[in-house]
Amino acid sequence: MMQNYKAVLQYDGTRYDGWQKQENTEKTIQGKLELLLSRIAGLPVQVHGSGRTDAGVHAMGQVANFCMDTELSAEELRVLINSYLPTDILVTSLEPAPERFHSRLNAKRKTYVYRMAQPGYQNVFLRNYVTFLEEPVDTGRMREAARLLLGEHDFKSFCSKKKIKKSTVRRIDSIVIEEKEGLITIRYTGNGFLYHMVRILTGTLTEVGAGKREPQEIPLILEKKDRQAAGFLMPPQGLFLEKVEY
Amino acid sequence: MMQNYKAVLQYDGTRYDGWQKQENTEKTIQGKLELLLSRIAGLPVQVHGSGRTDAGVHAMGQVANFCMDTELSAEELRVLINSYLPTDILVTSLEPAPERFHSRLNAKRKTYVYRMAQPGYQNVFLRNYVTFLEEPVDTGRMREAARLLLGEHDFKSFCSKKKIKKSTVRRIDSIVIEEKEGLITIRYTGNGFLYHMVRILTGTLTEVGAGKREPQEIPLILEKKDRQAAGFLMPPQGLFLEKVEY
Repeated sequence: MMQNYKAVLQYDGTRYDGWQKQENTEKTIQGKLELLLSRIAGLPVQVHGSGRTDAGVHAMGQVANFCMDTELSAEELRVLINSYLPTDILVTSLEPAPERFHSRLNAKRKTYVYRMAQPGYQNVFLRNYVTFLEEPVDTGRMREAARLLLGEHDFKSFCSKKKIKKSTVRRIDSIVIEEKEGLITIRYTGNGFLYHMVRILTGTLTEVGAGKREPQEIPLILEKKDRQAAGFLMPPQGLFLEKVEY
Repeated sequence: MMQNYKAVLQYDGTRYDGWQKQENTEKTIQGKLELLLSRIAGLPVQVHGSGRTDAGVHAMGQVANFCMDTELSAEELRVLINSYLPTDILVTSLEPAPERFHSRLNAKRKTYVYRMAQPGYQNVFLRNYVTFLEEPVDTGRMREAARLLLGEHDFKSFCSKKKIKKSTVRRIDSIVIEEKEGLITIRYTGNGFLYHMVRILTGTLTEVGAGKREPQEIPLILEKKDRQAAGFLMPPQGLFLEKVEY
């Protein structure tokens, strides 16, 4: 009998061209998973993710679902999948889900984390997981600006896609900025994020932190609904999809 | 004028055959550094490390020294070296040192950290930096055993080298074992460590933690002065040379 499964995944995005499958499926997370599951099932298996992550972006809790007919228990299937996956992708949990469960359509909230380090911060072990800043930032100023991003807004200015047919209105529930010994963590929770939105939000907050913009500019940037009004796109390696809530 | 320099280094040992240069110098940290410094100097430069680290072992604070004649300031030289080093090796500090300073001969104390995770701990980002245990360990039992290792002892049982001409007596000042959400950190500080000593000590403590040995066996293992009496050699990827004191 066909069973829908909900999988929670961790992956180190360094080696990959992002989540979404492309021609060279071996270089995307979705492609790798579909190839592997199709081999296990002996039939083509489609994997649906809660959303794309770009090349170099990581996940601590990406959620995906797929349908399969197997006699294995969910835990046996999870162990089998992990035994074939490369060491930079891991299924941390796998459970049967209702037939109608869809990881993207049913997602209620998502949390992303962006990590950056003040100039002078030295750690080779974080080279693929943190963005090293060239100029110092004042996280107090960044918090001031972040507050003005909370709530429901049209985030069109914070989206890289030019032609958008669907709504660009999203709700951000919280932005928590912490700094510890030069390492800065920004945790965004909201009902959804547009293409590149977290990285552009972070670029804009970083410009505020570096004194290049004022926190008060945020409402004006939102109003303009123009990508040119917002700050730069931060590099991918500091970004983690932390969790998806249903 | 020839100047002796003291360098502090971080490196991710994953890609390397360890610290010590071999025929294929490109695959060792010392080899890479000597090649690079010799190119900068236009003359062969020898790099002396505080000690070897094995293939896959990491360093947060390895210390090395080398002599060079350059018009650059130490900070300029550090930035130049880092600009040529691969991203998994980093010189975190570089300073002129007295002519007689030798990173190995003058080392007074060293601190190593070994990290392991209880079964069920899942983190792809730590795959090269932590040893994932197959059986749970009781860190209380490990602390009991660790206490019996403190002080000056002949650690011959904890050394992989068979024919040793030099003394195998070393002093361990502290072994601090911490456990946090399934991640265990063991921090060893002492006046020196024999070949494989930290990894064999950790293997022995792990066997005690898993209930395969009793803490009280430690004095007997030390007495035997026989590698066979001690526990297994832990894998390299959990090990970090944290700092060297002079």
